[in-house]
Amino acid sequence: MNLVSKKVLISEVGPRDGLQSIQSIMPTEFKKEWIAALYKAGLQEIEVGSFVSSKLLPQLADTSEIVKFAKTFEHLTVLALVPNLKGAQAAFESGVHKITIPVSASEAHSLANVRKTTSEMLAEVNQIVLYRNQIAPRIQIEIGISTAFGCTLQGVVLEDDVIRIAHSLAEMGVDEVGLSDTTGYANPEQVKRLFRRLKATIGERSGAAHLHNTRGLGLANCLAAFEEGVRAFDASLGGLGGCPYAPGASGNVVTEDLVFMFEAMGVDTGVNIEALIETRKILQQALPNELVYGMLAEAGVPKNFRIPSDRVVE
Amino acid sequence: MNLVSKKVLISEVGPRDGLQSIQSIMPTEFKKEWIAALYKAGLQEIEVGSFVSSKLLPQLADTSEIVKFAKTFEHLTVLALVPNLKGAQAAFESGVHKITIPVSASEAHSLANVRKTTSEMLAEVNQIVLYRNQIAPRIQIEIGISTAFGCTLQGVVLEDDVIRIAHSLAEMGVDEVGLSDTTGYANPEQVKRLFRRLKATIGERSGAAHLHNTRGLGLANCLAAFEEGVRAFDASLGGLGGCPYAPGASGNVVTEDLVFMFEAMGVDTGVNIEALIETRKILQQALPNELVYGMLAEAGVPKNFRIPSDRVVE
Repeated sequence: MNLVSKKVLISEVGPRDGLQSIQSIMPTEFKKEWIAALYKAGLQEIEVGSFVSSKLLPQLADTSEIVKFAKTFEHLTVLALVPNLKGAQAAFESGVHKITIPVSASEAHSLANVRKTTSEMLAEVNQIVLYRNQIAPRIQIEIGISTAFGCTLQGVVLEDDVIRIAHSLAEMGVDEVGLSDTTGYANPEQVKRLFRRLKATIGERSGAAHLHNTRGLGLANCLAAFEEGVRAFDASLGGLGGCPYAPGASGNVVTEDLVFMFEAMGVDTGVNIEALIETRKILQQALPNELVYGMLAEAGVPKNFRIPSDRVVE
Repeated sequence: MNLVSKKVLISEVGPRDGLQSIQSIMPTEFKKEWIAALYKAGLQEIEVGSFVSSKLLPQLADTSEIVKFAKTFEHLTVLALVPNLKGAQAAFESGVHKITIPVSASEAHSLANVRKTTSEMLAEVNQIVLYRNQIAPRIQIEIGISTAFGCTLQGVVLEDDVIRIAHSLAEMGVDEVGLSDTTGYANPEQVKRLFRRLKATIGERSGAAHLHNTRGLGLANCLAAFEEGVRAFDASLGGLGGCPYAPGASGNVVTEDLVFMFEAMGVDTGVNIEALIETRKILQQALPNELVYGMLAEAGVPKNFRIPSDRVVE
């Protein structure tokens, strides 16, 4: 495997996925400070919020304002989650560059998460794509297929179902279809197999890996996806958005740890790891009651680790 | 990669590496109960103790008795660490099947760990091999090259040095030479590269991967080693022997998590994962003041996970 000049995109999902999973509400000013610091550390894509009812998710009620703020940073891709056409309309109005829509491969999870069957959700996506094509053709639409590797509610999820859903989505005109290990069930062999099938089926529309560390396999699964050719990864600073019932039983892959793995391997993330670790302080200050997780920050950057000279943050 | 009928050996190092790193002393009866439970769960090799001065490591003063106990289990490989010829003599007397000797690639670490330079340690190993050949030719000698991937004391460790040391050891007649990431500095690319060179240099004497999870890369590094053809892995139940200064900043790879990764991938470890998780209770009971770590045990075995039918523990 020749890694020279290999690059990956790390998509920071903390401001959306992280903040929606916790009880605390981060004040808007802290969100702005956090996003600015993440950008300065070198992140090129940030999922900044979600266009859902503020009654459902008061943590993300300021998403419109946050999108406008995030758009002031040059070359930063500003991404927001939308669960339906109404959300997409609000997102397009706010000026996002990209929206992400969750579609569950597990019917049980789909009903629990968005109160729609998978087929109904596919119909909703189709409506959003048609609307996008009409009024905002430059906005990118990404889908993360949730529970792609198994589901806590129904157990096994058939890989054929995942691939069939991905195929339908690509046919509709969705720009990217990624795979999400919502429940932390994935293993490296399965990650490779499913991303290989995804790419064989939808080619260049094959999207990001959203992998969880629930059972400790987060980075191993990211490595497997990378080896299979995946070049975009979701992660959350400090593992924010982890499962609340057990310390360390995190959900999202920790951004710092993931960036460290790639950089240590000589794979370019564009991120300055020390500046990234510094951004944890904002999180700790803004959310004093939340656990900010991560192995690298606790242990420190190894003595033999070198930050590329073109990535020094002044 | 065809994984059908792939097998790995998981070598449990908790009773030695784990117990020597903590302040608490586990009573002998608990050690016996723990080893018996690990064996029943399917582990085939256990590092049960260390032949060092009981003044230095009172935690392991009962190693001789533990070796005798562990030898009562059919087909279990009973392994002990020895730092010098004197320790080897005591180990051979106790009847161990295999000894493991640490040799540091970093001079600074070597002096700190065994008060010998690397060259002096190689001479010590040579003496042990000659002694073994004379009086106990069936006892296996394994070396783990410590700090093979970098060192907290001196930073970079040259890969050429590691390979040169491995070559010398193989020439002496050591049976297996493995690589240890003592400081948690390794990354998957480096793990592949160094094990590839090791195998190219010493062939079938190329031994186990002893990888740490200090910076969260433990399982990713094990995956990398596996993909490079390594089939023996050290791990510690509950991550015992972790770094004491930060919760979660573990040292050793957690046995349960490692077994889960391989079994989920369809790689045979011979271990019943649920029985293995049960053995954590003994650890918790025997060491109430120690953190028993591990992601799988906290999150639970996935609903879609199946234990091979030939491995049910009655």
